[in-house]
Amino acid sequence: METRINEQIAFLKEIDALKSINRATYLANRSRKENSAEHSWHVALFALIFAEQAKKEVDLFKAIKMLLLHDIVEIDVGDNPIFGNYNANTVADSEAKAADRIFGLLPADQASEMQEIWLEFESASTATAQFAKSMDRFQAPAQNLISKGGSWQDYDVTFDQVEKKVGSQIALSAPKLWAWLKPRVKAFLGN
Amino acid sequence: METRINEQIAFLKEIDALKSINRATYLANRSRKENSAEHSWHVALFALIFAEQAKKEVDLFKAIKMLLLHDIVEIDVGDNPIFGNYNANTVADSEAKAADRIFGLLPADQASEMQEIWLEFESASTATAQFAKSMDRFQAPAQNLISKGGSWQDYDVTFDQVEKKVGSQIALSAPKLWAWLKPRVKAFLGN
Repeated sequence: METRINEQIAFLKEIDALKSINRATYLANRSRKENSAEHSWHVALFALIFAEQAKKEVDLFKAIKMLLLHDIVEIDVGDNPIFGNYNANTVADSEAKAADRIFGLLPADQASEMQEIWLEFESASTATAQFAKSMDRFQAPAQNLISKGGSWQDYDVTFDQVEKKVGSQIALSAPKLWAWLKPRVKAFLGN
Repeated sequence: METRINEQIAFLKEIDALKSINRATYLANRSRKENSAEHSWHVALFALIFAEQAKKEVDLFKAIKMLLLHDIVEIDVGDNPIFGNYNANTVADSEAKAADRIFGLLPADQASEMQEIWLEFESASTATAQFAKSMDRFQAPAQNLISKGGSWQDYDVTFDQVEKKVGSQIALSAPKLWAWLKPRVKAFLGN
């Protein structure tokens, strides 16, 4: 039992580092960029509050587990903003290695369990993962509207880019939220 | 629908402020104090990883909802560290008012639902709330061990104080975790 708890604590200690990984988005008051730990908390609450937008087959608890775990790989790889310039395949390889290392700190049964949840999210292969992804996609532009532009200005983002990269995912799993977001982003960014 | 989403977004925007509420505890690397939003994320993961310590009657998803919501009142009231010097009744009154205001931003049905979850946590009246509380109590000393003392040094805390205020709650709901923690806190703090 003591070894098991030691391994669990080693994981919980390691993931403290996510509090030091900065994202592209800003806090509402623009005092600083948000970090991936507090973002993970915020987006879990988006899922809880917008649960009523999820399709019937979505397992809400699992979606929230995904959102709590989804950015942990950034401890090794850093945050790659959706409008940033990087090679998606290289990033995916690095994230898979990071998942092996970080979830591997846990006892073997939990390492597998958490890695499976993370992989399901990454592959967006189920309604649950697609809903979780749509919450992750929705939080960033919502945060940009709240913080009066935020990362859109830093990355020179247009409405068409938001619609293509973000809107399509949100529309798939939570179409009413995209219907809410779309005119607001358009009014802010023009095109 | 649009009014409902507007109210939900108003709540999700308001709680962004939790990212600016600092706690007494430090990050593992001691670079700064942790804030209540990232703490809420971290402690939700403590609950997920230590779910196997929970009694059978604990509703794990509800416990995690409690932990995601439990500190939101600090947006108005601030964090009151467990070893700090304050009037618990005054703080409880202020937190109840904060809960009315902040959860009150949500549509009425969700405001009631979230406030009930928060009240159940606060009153520690169920096995689920007691488990969630024990995770909240456990994360702080674990974080202090990880950050080599942290808030214990700032508040001149003794082992007896930790045992009385923190250990008793952890022992109630997760006795194996207190058995793990106790000798480590004693070795660190002496008495």
